Amino acid sequence: MPKRILRVNMSKLETSFEDFPDSYATLGGRALTSTIVSKEVDPTCHPLGPNNKLVFAPGIITGTVAPTSGRISVGGKSPLTGGIKEANAGTDFPQRLARMQIAAIIVEGQPKGDDYHMVKISMDKVEFINANKYVGKGLYQVYKDLFKEFGNRVSICACGIAGELMGAASGICFNDPEGLPSRYAGRGGLGAVMASKGLKFIVVDDTGAPGVEIKNKELFDQGREKLRKALAEHDVTKPDGALASYGTAVLVNIINEAGGLPQRNFSSGQDDRAANISGEKKAEEIKIRGGTRPHHCNPGCVIRCSEVWTKPGGKDPVGVLEYESVWALGANCSIYNLDDIGELNRACNDLGLDTIEAGDTIAVAMEGGMLKFGDGKGALKVMDEIRKKTPTGRILANGCAFTGQAFGVTRVPVVKGQAFPAYDPRAIKGIGVTYATTPMGADHTAGYAIATEIMGVGGTADPRDTNKSELSRNLQVATAYLDSTGYCLFTAFAVLDIPEGLEGMIQSVNGVLGTEVDLTELGMKVITTERDFNKAAGFTAADDRLPEFLRQEPVAPSNEVFNVSNEELDKVWGA
Amino acid sequence: MPKRILRVNMSKLETSFEDFPDSYATLGGRALTSTIVSKEVDPTCHPLGPNNKLVFAPGIITGTVAPTSGRISVGGKSPLTGGIKEANAGTDFPQRLARMQIAAIIVEGQPKGDDYHMVKISMDKVEFINANKYVGKGLYQVYKDLFKEFGNRVSICACGIAGELMGAASGICFNDPEGLPSRYAGRGGLGAVMASKGLKFIVVDDTGAPGVEIKNKELFDQGREKLRKALAEHDVTKPDGALASYGTAVLVNIINEAGGLPQRNFSSGQDDRAANISGEKKAEEIKIRGGTRPHHCNPGCVIRCSEVWTKPGGKDPVGVLEYESVWALGANCSIYNLDDIGELNRACNDLGLDTIEAGDTIAVAMEGGMLKFGDGKGALKVMDEIRKKTPTGRILANGCAFTGQAFGVTRVPVVKGQAFPAYDPRAIKGIGVTYATTPMGADHTAGYAIATEIMGVGGTADPRDTNKSELSRNLQVATAYLDSTGYCLFTAFAVLDIPEGLEGMIQSVNGVLGTEVDLTELGMKVITTERDFNKAAGFTAADDRLPEFLRQEPVAPSNEVFNVSNEELDKVWGA
Repeated sequence: MPKRILRVNMSKLETSFEDFPDSYATLGGRALTSTIVSKEVDPTCHPLGPNNKLVFAPGIITGTVAPTSGRISVGGKSPLTGGIKEANAGTDFPQRLARMQIAAIIVEGQPKGDDYHMVKISMDKVEFINANKYVGKGLYQVYKDLFKEFGNRVSICACGIAGELMGAASGICFNDPEGLPSRYAGRGGLGAVMASKGLKFIVVDDTGAPGVEIKNKELFDQGREKLRKALAEHDVTKPDGALASYGTAVLVNIINEAGGLPQRNFSSGQDDRAANISGEKKAEEIKIRGGTRPHHCNPGCVIRCSEVWTKPGGKDPVGVLEYESVWALGANCSIYNLDDIGELNRACNDLGLDTIEAGDTIAVAMEGGMLKFGDGKGALKVMDEIRKKTPTGRILANGCAFTGQAFGVTRVPVVKGQAFPAYDPRAIKGIGVTYATTPMGADHTAGYAIATEIMGVGGTADPRDTNKSELSRNLQVATAYLDSTGYCLFTAFAVLDIPEGLEGMIQSVNGVLGTEVDLTELGMKVITTERDFNKAAGFTAADDRLPEFLRQEPVAPSNEVFNVSNEELDKVWGA
Repeated sequence: MPKRILRVNMSKLETSFEDFPDSYATLGGRALTSTIVSKEVDPTCHPLGPNNKLVFAPGIITGTVAPTSGRISVGGKSPLTGGIKEANAGTDFPQRLARMQIAAIIVEGQPKGDDYHMVKISMDKVEFINANKYVGKGLYQVYKDLFKEFGNRVSICACGIAGELMGAASGICFNDPEGLPSRYAGRGGLGAVMASKGLKFIVVDDTGAPGVEIKNKELFDQGREKLRKALAEHDVTKPDGALASYGTAVLVNIINEAGGLPQRNFSSGQDDRAANISGEKKAEEIKIRGGTRPHHCNPGCVIRCSEVWTKPGGKDPVGVLEYESVWALGANCSIYNLDDIGELNRACNDLGLDTIEAGDTIAVAMEGGMLKFGDGKGALKVMDEIRKKTPTGRILANGCAFTGQAFGVTRVPVVKGQAFPAYDPRAIKGIGVTYATTPMGADHTAGYAIATEIMGVGGTADPRDTNKSELSRNLQVATAYLDSTGYCLFTAFAVLDIPEGLEGMIQSVNGVLGTEVDLTELGMKVITTERDFNKAAGFTAADDRLPEFLRQEPVAPSNEVFNVSNEELDKVWGA
């Protein structure tokens, strides 16, 4: 059975399978979503109108036994940035799609009327099912109901209440292995794009699927084994390594120490109370409570950075509390209490909100006087405004920049409209270069300079050094490749340090494809495609900038401002 | 006494006079505000931060006895469009400034803390007075109080509650001859810029002012007499002409007839009920009620399009109900009742809101389900949300595009974030070319193609003809000149048709300056300056476009879409 594309037309409520075009043969994940979006979507269209499309694509090796490879890319024109967007998540959803030989789902059009639908995909048919009864409901209960209805051989993708509000802070939800709605392609408001198409869920049942075709099995096996070895060796990714032991939140203490953990809406870079919400503290608590740690977000992951955070006594599992979420909903709001953060994270998952955007939004609302910094219970209460779809909820569901404008706040940490992740670019410059210059809007995953600047992975670089265009570019290009393969970004820690690991990764990808794909060539092609889309949408060098306040307000304790020159920023892509 | 610039530093609460630079010698009004903004404001700064500036400039001939010349330009970086903004108003405020030889006021910096101030300018001193007691109050009462305090030899400029909210729909208010807060430099959110600087009022007392220096009195007198004659002759501007008889709302029936009067958030171009809110109907009502018509907005106007609309029995004067306001708050919201419209206009004046932006905002909120189309009382009630500074009020105070995003509405009539005036560009194409390509965002006054397309002024043009780049460009260039002179835009009706009138206008301007200023050269220079600012702020050709829905939804009764090609739009400035 050859690879195919599933086209879902929401105007007509029709679906059709198309042959996977030869011109896409070497594409998957981000390379595929960005190529399809670029080819099929008018860059000037309204992101929530009938002319935008929402594209789902498993990575090239997703669905195989290659380690840590269960990633899905979701693409479209972003209602948050106004540019192209790829957001990705680790979940079993794309593994099922890939095994069904579905290389991409393209959702297009827009129905008349207010009905919501789900699309149920199995080997023998694709059907629409009315989903109105799930509208306005929290995703924890909804996922429980859906898994009860469809059984455990399915994976589920959803938009939540934030999406129903057409909120630019809404993400696209996937399940974790426990069926919790906790794995998100969170960034850029793609949940609203899904909702704008009247699409509430995609349910995938891969029973009877033929599996992923591997063109050169020997090369693939050789490659994945090298990669597995590298992952098992590297301090960050090994079975008892930093990620498995403490999860991504292992970074809380490290970045706080570096003076780059933004506090109180980016008004400081360090706070002693950060230790209360560190990965170490969280791992300890999970052990006491009876949650799960380590844990994988999809079958076949050997890094296992994930976890199941619960209330005391192991009750009411939330899913993972990622570093970025703990920071956004925690330190950035002056909330230094894991129980409050856990419940805020639950609220985000339940409502279909990106945790980073949500945390930055609450912090800006705090600065605007809606509630007090540090008020965890108050923050939880304002999340209910989204659930009730009140005007306050509509403001918050539209994210950080929108909330800043509503409340007249000028210290608003966004690039291209998208809220900053958990690293202050005044203290750590390279990540700021990535925030500014990635086509995605402020996004740490697009070129994770922290690896080199703080963790000494892939070489070392002084965080204060302002010459970071090359570092950021190289990482952005490699990441665009990685995001296309389906390998998790965290495999990069090992492959940046262990040459055999990188070699193995590339061999495994080429093994699946049966042809040689050059990392740099594919990575650059992806980014060029994305930048061309953004250019046609009206982006210029002025959009590749950090907000004004970062150049004017020094951050404690380093007392640094963001002092990377515009020339250095423009050197990233030679604009 | 030579011309001077008053610089008001709100960080230090200091003021200083500076010599008017030779390089500015031939500039006034818009040419001066745009030049100063371009020279002194970083195009990438936050519009509500300390690095934006707010510039006030009377026109070149303002303060002289030249007819219909009491205009003031207000400039800065717009929080609505993110680009350069010039908004202007007719009022006696700039006449006093000009007579005091103050060519411009530059307000800069930003105070710490929440105090509001007023600046009182007289010949012997400039002083700051604490204005906290006026914060949160409606401007009708506030203007009454201030005129009581300062007497009738002053003019007053203010921002209102919408500005205090940092609302992008806020305007800058000036008094009419009755002291009503009804003359607005409304567009682009400059009220928020004023408020962001802690500046609540500027009070100008010109007692003892030396008057405007006229370099060539003979040329000036000769010119203004020719212009006066032309204004007295032309059907639109003569003493018993269309504008004097019915005000600007004379256009309601005309544009409705042409199928270009947008109804119900741009979902139709015509409605029989428009007759209920026409200029003719309004003039009739004013006669019955005992309001005033015709009326001038400033001493020396011979066109007298203004009026004082009141409640029945002549009570509670509002001031003028302009065509654009009657349309925005009326037909566009399916409100066909002059009493409701009058009260909505009063609310806008009272709150410091741009009536066009406010009307388009309410219509979009109606489409988003906040209230029903046609619900005049409901619309008035939601205006109170702004007064109470509720979250709903914060949404509305930020204008049409913002409200559209909050409520998930995609039929949002804006260019560069600024709401459309009262002409549907599907039925009347040339005005659409101006909306798209003026540096100001959707603005009919920037190049009033309606004059030629509908009124046969300055030639004739078929409204459906799509070749309108030349018409729009010529009008935009002439308007940039006109906006710099201080002459009201409505003088254009006469000077476009009567060559001696145009000659007189130019002579009068050259007479004041004592040098020859070329209309086209100055006009083009102004627009180039503005476009350069916008380009540095990140604008591209993609911003010189109308919203997507206008190309996709035909408008009744013409069944036309906006079908001017992008190439034709780009031909306006040769981009």
